[in-house]
Amino acid sequence: MTAPVSPLAPKGFPGLEPLAGVRLADHECGIRYKQRTDLLLVEMAPGTTVAGVFTKSLTCSAPVLWCKDAAAKGSARLVVVNSGNANAFTGAAGIASVKRTAEKAAKVAGCKPSEVFIASTGTIGVVLPDEKITENLDAAYAKLSAGSWERAAKAIMTTDTYPKGATRKALIDGVEVTITGIAKGAGMIAPDMATMLSFVFTDAALPHEVLQTLLSKGVGKSFNSITVDSDTSTSDTLLLFATGKACSPKIKDASDKRLKDFKAKLNEILLDLAHQVVKDGEGATKFVAITVNGAASNRAAKRIGMSIANSPLVKTAIAGEDANWGRIVMAVGKAGEKADRDRLGISIGGIAVARNGQGVDGYDEAPVTAHMKGQCIDIDVDIGLGAGKATVWTCDLTHAYIDINGSYRT
Amino acid sequence: MTAPVSPLAPKGFPGLEPLAGVRLADHECGIRYKQRTDLLLVEMAPGTTVAGVFTKSLTCSAPVLWCKDAAAKGSARLVVVNSGNANAFTGAAGIASVKRTAEKAAKVAGCKPSEVFIASTGTIGVVLPDEKITENLDAAYAKLSAGSWERAAKAIMTTDTYPKGATRKALIDGVEVTITGIAKGAGMIAPDMATMLSFVFTDAALPHEVLQTLLSKGVGKSFNSITVDSDTSTSDTLLLFATGKACSPKIKDASDKRLKDFKAKLNEILLDLAHQVVKDGEGATKFVAITVNGAASNRAAKRIGMSIANSPLVKTAIAGEDANWGRIVMAVGKAGEKADRDRLGISIGGIAVARNGQGVDGYDEAPVTAHMKGQCIDIDVDIGLGAGKATVWTCDLTHAYIDINGSYRT
Repeated sequence: MTAPVSPLAPKGFPGLEPLAGVRLADHECGIRYKQRTDLLLVEMAPGTTVAGVFTKSLTCSAPVLWCKDAAAKGSARLVVVNSGNANAFTGAAGIASVKRTAEKAAKVAGCKPSEVFIASTGTIGVVLPDEKITENLDAAYAKLSAGSWERAAKAIMTTDTYPKGATRKALIDGVEVTITGIAKGAGMIAPDMATMLSFVFTDAALPHEVLQTLLSKGVGKSFNSITVDSDTSTSDTLLLFATGKACSPKIKDASDKRLKDFKAKLNEILLDLAHQVVKDGEGATKFVAITVNGAASNRAAKRIGMSIANSPLVKTAIAGEDANWGRIVMAVGKAGEKADRDRLGISIGGIAVARNGQGVDGYDEAPVTAHMKGQCIDIDVDIGLGAGKATVWTCDLTHAYIDINGSYRT
Repeated sequence: MTAPVSPLAPKGFPGLEPLAGVRLADHECGIRYKQRTDLLLVEMAPGTTVAGVFTKSLTCSAPVLWCKDAAAKGSARLVVVNSGNANAFTGAAGIASVKRTAEKAAKVAGCKPSEVFIASTGTIGVVLPDEKITENLDAAYAKLSAGSWERAAKAIMTTDTYPKGATRKALIDGVEVTITGIAKGAGMIAPDMATMLSFVFTDAALPHEVLQTLLSKGVGKSFNSITVDSDTSTSDTLLLFATGKACSPKIKDASDKRLKDFKAKLNEILLDLAHQVVKDGEGATKFVAITVNGAASNRAAKRIGMSIANSPLVKTAIAGEDANWGRIVMAVGKAGEKADRDRLGISIGGIAVARNGQGVDGYDEAPVTAHMKGQCIDIDVDIGLGAGKATVWTCDLTHAYIDINGSYRT
């Protein structure tokens, strides 16, 4: 299936430079796709540390189980990602295939199996033909080079319509470090070929515990604040690796002030990649930012925001360029968080359309209508109760979503 | 907007006979629609008792607030329902318009305002022009007669493509009573013109407390077990009235064994009407029954069932006639209830497609494919952990849903 590139795609892949301590290779294994790469191999220098955040699904995939264990050990040397098969819901056979792949990869790279990180994305419920990967590991390993991040990002695509990457420079105690990441995902996040995977690398020197704290914190306002269709993948995986090659001071406390700039830039990358995933949402034609203020708590604000962002009625109204604020009220009401109908205020594109529990009489519809016709839609909701706030991002729900998901496997 | 009648609609409106103690009138008030009725008036005999179940939305409409108070008082004489305007999110003006309508109706009928039940369905956020109702109440009242349930059901339709009604006879201690109900709703339940309203009447003699217990209990496995799009209306209202005209014994305890048949028939009506709402789900082409067994509790089973029923990926797969059980696994995993990937079993149309955490090798695809092409889809999920079970009902997610909701107001 070749879908046209999302109208919300960035103009092009960003210019990502090689990163010290990271070598890349992409390869064609023929797991499912024909005439495209479907394997990404990333080798990191000895001493590389790692942190991970994973799907909360109770039916998560074999590779996720593997990576959770490996990330807890904190040390990483290799990433092996395939597209075309998610190796999810494949029982004992799935676990065995991950183990075989990690063992073979460790042998090829001369490291421990627990330093190998495996991610798979694609159809679920089909046992991964891991021999197609293991047979090709030597050849892929031989190709490792400073490489192309764009090629790397392309090898892990499934229903994505464009490759996703981002980079930032940061200073740690005066030493410049680089953070570079790639991601794939086109649903938030579908089990069939639309899982969210993201791999972020830095040449900073940071211990596992610090990385894990920064990543766990950073994900809340980025990857965990986006939704395409409310469906959670069995395979969502976000890994952060630090090679230490920039020789920045090895800071041991995540709250150390010298990490301020690094934290900010890491969070920028996570948000940038998360936005790119939403902008490639299946069938998306509008990128929607929903900001909730005045909720009882930040957590309540996020739940209300997600209730709006996941509402099929809100999403179809946006697709239809209809400033239907009544549906936003409905979504606030069903969120299960404290709300008072008569304090609620709603703005669309910066124009107040409802205030104190009712529509604003004779508000200027022209700029609202014009805003709804644009590609970026801003919805601001004021609950009027407290100081809780949150922003979440989503896309609209269109015919193309149905086309993509209503006829995928057949 | 005139949509074609749902392909899942029953062959015709059931033959509902007049009910002792109930008089009906429909009327054209021109609230929003042209050339159709948009007001239903129902008068019940003096002594009629009432029970109600309402939306849990925290942004519920002015009529819902009114009916909650009135239902708690337990006595009913009149129902006034308009279509075309939901009088929701209309602030103090909305409350005032309900009060004016109830007061005028009480005067016309010679009862207390608290015995008047008001329900409104249609666009939200627009102040109800209640004078269009109050001006017509005398004329409508003059038309009251044993009347036509089909006309009554039609007057309250919005995006519904067919009127919904059901009736059953029951025995209470050897005395035959009748239960007859009508409903409207085409989304579960959209705030714009697709709210679920249902009014059920019986000539049994039952006190308010008994009615309320039976209704609250009955709704769990019927109206509260259906979903079209996971969106909860601000106006959902279900009222049950008992006129007492059948002179059945006035049983004072809901657990009295003489109510066994009545309970069963009431539950049948609630389920019948709830199914009719799902079958008129916006854009629906398939009626889907999802049964979950083996969950940790009945509550857990229902949450898992609803997670499957609300998943856009499951619903689009069903629309595409694709037996994509991987998406069902995903939806189980995201439900937040106890599940063990390696114990999960899934059957579609009675054929086991997954068992013990993985796909059933070489299952017979032909009957599954044939089943998916039918109008009624059965999905059975065995969690494999406990004795909790539940059945929920939904419909598929199709292009027509997007058409209806993406361009409604404009």
